Amino acid sequence: MQSIQAIRSRLLLTSAALALAVAGPVAAQEEDLKKEHDTSPAGQYVGEYDTLGQLNLEIPGRRPNDPVINQEEYDIANKIYFERCAGCHGVLRRGATGKALTVDITRDLGYEHLHSFITYGSPAGMPNWGTSGDLSEEEVDIMARYLLLDPASPPEWGMDKMLESWKVVVAPEDRPTEKMNDIDIDNLMSVTLRDAGQIALIDGTTYEIHAILETGYAVHISRISASGRYLLVIGRDGRVNMIDMWMETPATVAEIKVGIEARSVETSKMEGYEDKYAIAGAYWPPQYVIMDGNTLEPLKIKSTRGYIYDEQTYHPEPRVAAILSSHYKPEFIVNIKETGKIHMVDYTDLKNLKITEIEAERFLHDGGLDSTKRYFITAANARNKLVVIDTKESKLVAITDTEGLTPHPGRGANFVHPDHGPVWATSHLGDESVALIGTDPEGHADNAWKIVETFYALGGGSLFVKTHPESDNLYVDATLNPDAETSASVAVFKISDLKAGEEPEYTTLPIGEWAGITEGQPRVVQPEFNQAGTEVWFSVWNAKDLVSAIVVVDDKTLELKEVIKDERLITPTGKFNVFNTRADVY
Amino acid sequence: MQSIQAIRSRLLLTSAALALAVAGPVAAQEEDLKKEHDTSPAGQYVGEYDTLGQLNLEIPGRRPNDPVINQEEYDIANKIYFERCAGCHGVLRRGATGKALTVDITRDLGYEHLHSFITYGSPAGMPNWGTSGDLSEEEVDIMARYLLLDPASPPEWGMDKMLESWKVVVAPEDRPTEKMNDIDIDNLMSVTLRDAGQIALIDGTTYEIHAILETGYAVHISRISASGRYLLVIGRDGRVNMIDMWMETPATVAEIKVGIEARSVETSKMEGYEDKYAIAGAYWPPQYVIMDGNTLEPLKIKSTRGYIYDEQTYHPEPRVAAILSSHYKPEFIVNIKETGKIHMVDYTDLKNLKITEIEAERFLHDGGLDSTKRYFITAANARNKLVVIDTKESKLVAITDTEGLTPHPGRGANFVHPDHGPVWATSHLGDESVALIGTDPEGHADNAWKIVETFYALGGGSLFVKTHPESDNLYVDATLNPDAETSASVAVFKISDLKAGEEPEYTTLPIGEWAGITEGQPRVVQPEFNQAGTEVWFSVWNAKDLVSAIVVVDDKTLELKEVIKDERLITPTGKFNVFNTRADVY
Repeated sequence: MQSIQAIRSRLLLTSAALALAVAGPVAAQEEDLKKEHDTSPAGQYVGEYDTLGQLNLEIPGRRPNDPVINQEEYDIANKIYFERCAGCHGVLRRGATGKALTVDITRDLGYEHLHSFITYGSPAGMPNWGTSGDLSEEEVDIMARYLLLDPASPPEWGMDKMLESWKVVVAPEDRPTEKMNDIDIDNLMSVTLRDAGQIALIDGTTYEIHAILETGYAVHISRISASGRYLLVIGRDGRVNMIDMWMETPATVAEIKVGIEARSVETSKMEGYEDKYAIAGAYWPPQYVIMDGNTLEPLKIKSTRGYIYDEQTYHPEPRVAAILSSHYKPEFIVNIKETGKIHMVDYTDLKNLKITEIEAERFLHDGGLDSTKRYFITAANARNKLVVIDTKESKLVAITDTEGLTPHPGRGANFVHPDHGPVWATSHLGDESVALIGTDPEGHADNAWKIVETFYALGGGSLFVKTHPESDNLYVDATLNPDAETSASVAVFKISDLKAGEEPEYTTLPIGEWAGITEGQPRVVQPEFNQAGTEVWFSVWNAKDLVSAIVVVDDKTLELKEVIKDERLITPTGKFNVFNTRADVY
Repeated sequence: MQSIQAIRSRLLLTSAALALAVAGPVAAQEEDLKKEHDTSPAGQYVGEYDTLGQLNLEIPGRRPNDPVINQEEYDIANKIYFERCAGCHGVLRRGATGKALTVDITRDLGYEHLHSFITYGSPAGMPNWGTSGDLSEEEVDIMARYLLLDPASPPEWGMDKMLESWKVVVAPEDRPTEKMNDIDIDNLMSVTLRDAGQIALIDGTTYEIHAILETGYAVHISRISASGRYLLVIGRDGRVNMIDMWMETPATVAEIKVGIEARSVETSKMEGYEDKYAIAGAYWPPQYVIMDGNTLEPLKIKSTRGYIYDEQTYHPEPRVAAILSSHYKPEFIVNIKETGKIHMVDYTDLKNLKITEIEAERFLHDGGLDSTKRYFITAANARNKLVVIDTKESKLVAITDTEGLTPHPGRGANFVHPDHGPVWATSHLGDESVALIGTDPEGHADNAWKIVETFYALGGGSLFVKTHPESDNLYVDATLNPDAETSASVAVFKISDLKAGEEPEYTTLPIGEWAGITEGQPRVVQPEFNQAGTEVWFSVWNAKDLVSAIVVVDDKTLELKEVIKDERLITPTGKFNVFNTRADVY
């Protein structure tokens, strides 16, 4: 294994450089990345708490140069902000998918700039609210003035709001009793059409688009119920759609809005609880909700507000990141980002709800199970750590430095390294390194939960790695790399050729070139295998008014197999193979 | 058993009448009572959240008629308020021990009235901050203006603040290795001297005052560690004192401030965990903290902010009421008032903290164990309910209407009713009724967790009932009754004479008269047995500048045995026999 020194000296990117370099449709991840690194827990809102803790309170009141807005205008502005803007810019205006809009920034920009930006939008993803007619001239004016004021505290989203938003479109008794279509559901791909607020269901064999379904904005993930029947997707705006795959044309049978900003959804997988419960986690309000698995009826809401695991100061906004379903216990595994805690939520008795709250590390993000499905490995990405949880014992096993900058594993990738035995891989947002952690405490005890190998892929800005039990390849993207050629390519490592302590060769696939897109700077994101593990799909993600595509590669030959283009494929990003997602194969 | 109709028609008091009638040192309980009935969760603070939920926000800013205060004055006022005032008036100024000070009230009263009140105090318990010299003329002026402004959001109190406040006065290694005094610790009484901010340790045999110790303000309860060595007391200001009873003269060996307002402290009692942990619950911030049982080092803070059990809307201030230690499991039982939840906190592994959150009823207050110590019976007093928890299974067993108004059991009273078998008794704040709930699901399954009998004591305004396994008497006070003679007396029921469905006779003991106090309106509060169960002690609680006393009664003869008077016994209220408290004998 190489020295860390050597790796660090070869870094192409630091987070800061990355933030300066990226542009276009990737502003989303860039802002997310910056947010992870902001260790002050919640900007304006928390600042208030911190200040109070010091007993240095500001007099409740407006400041001398505050713009003028009357109560009626303020009501209009809040309604518009929370409905249209908060999903991207964050409820506390600290930025997320969109830029931060705190007063230090907005007052620098000034009224005219804000007014123009709201009216005409930007190529980086800001909608043209004015010229599209979504907002009137008067409303744009109000919003521009509103943004010069301190952010309002965001609204709560409790059972009352959830029930108002909850719709059972097709009641369980009116749904088909058997599969009414010929779709090979297990080999279907659920593809996020980010800026369209839709998903595409694409056949994994024929590449036919079976359906385009309206969903929440920028669907973050797709998950499939344990039986394989129901597909659940969640938008960044907190809208959850439950899609019945047995219908002649799969369609939404239930939906609910679980919060104002959200990222995660999952369903119960333990034997005896298949399809019984669903769970969704929100960024705002900071909470998760357990729902009926057939109807999405909200049953139990749990707030995550509380103490940061290490310094034990109160955090008002601990956002819910990844949620997984245990295969060993009737438990959901809930990552809570800012407090660095993992909740093991026992769903056998919601009235006497048992939760084991594990002290892990800040800022928990995404992760996946090892190949035995017993261990959950998750990134605390702003701390450059991997956290390992034993889902059988509901306990922390290890916290390991990845030796890279900002690990971003997605679900990660499990394979057997020729020298090190079973490992799980993550790439990094902040550098070009790929880290392998040993995952076999019985067969390879010396390697267990240690970084056994670090090697280099194309460059920094990677979002996902991927392999499959049937594949000998490890794919590593570089989606957020500022270099257009790099961000449009993918590195492929031959697993059986890997050797301990030796820098491996890799093959570079020019996915963007294969897509044949001439305009824009399409970025290649998220390798995803078909069910059989014979093909890998890549999204070629362009701006929303330009052509995007999905490129399918033969895993054995590494040759182009198909380019899927369709005018409906607007900004494709995440893709989720139904079987691999359901069975946690990655 | 008599009809509810008949009972209701005989009620002497409604809560409202009680609130109007009481005065003097009991304003505390009256305000507490009103607070329980205030179902809007947290006044100003929550109102803000509620309004936000509706998207009708007020423009951040001051109102036209707000008084003038500059930032420096505001800083001074906040410091004074949180240090001196919040303990009684509540951090959100909604009132608690002291009156509510929300702006609707303070603006009605006006600057002059507030200024005068702060300067001179009141006989109802408000200190004379001005004439005592505690506040300067300028500070009184600032405070009067400050109170006309909307309340500031209260500060957090996390690990940083706790560690600042934590003192180990005598390190464990410097403490005696054996008992250095001749005190019969198990028969000692720890007596709260409310307005003095002290406790008195009084010998249960000789009635001698062994020590007067400085503590937090208005010590709410005394608890004793499982070994019987350490006495823990908590003031309403959140200060916890740990007193080593083995020292020649028992003294504080460790202390900490766990919050700004607090009520509850307890220690671990499970075999193998004796004296290992202590726990304290706070009203503000809404949280509890697990501490080292030898040093009070704060180890783990858990916020209680979250969802109300039934309507599932977010509550920003769910206060921690009673905490008990399970004898069946290594768990603390934590009552959370506003959300109506009970946390069963497993203390075996603080890093992987397991909590079972039981949906119970709002607004949980105090309670005690049944005679087998397996079941925890607690009042949800503003809902007129008793909640029963099985501490062996960590599950809800029953929620039962007491058929009275505002049950206020303290620890309650366990005895065997001649007809109904084992029962647990509570009296009521809002009426004169005493309710008995069956506690023997095996021997008397038909009666289990039902109100088997309701009968009448002296009058409304009762705070405590008491008996002892060696006693045939049930004592019921009427501390808050507006009638002076009633509030100075106690009703005694002979247990062996009780009959199903028959209104029992009782003996009235003129405790106040026996105390021989001629000035003020001393109220009799909290019967407490000595260890042997042969004597009952009563506090005769007068205003702080008048004579108070403790009256000891022979349990067999119901005759006066001793009047303990001492100029140091200022405003005695709660008394805690060390053995009975430690072993949960009541």
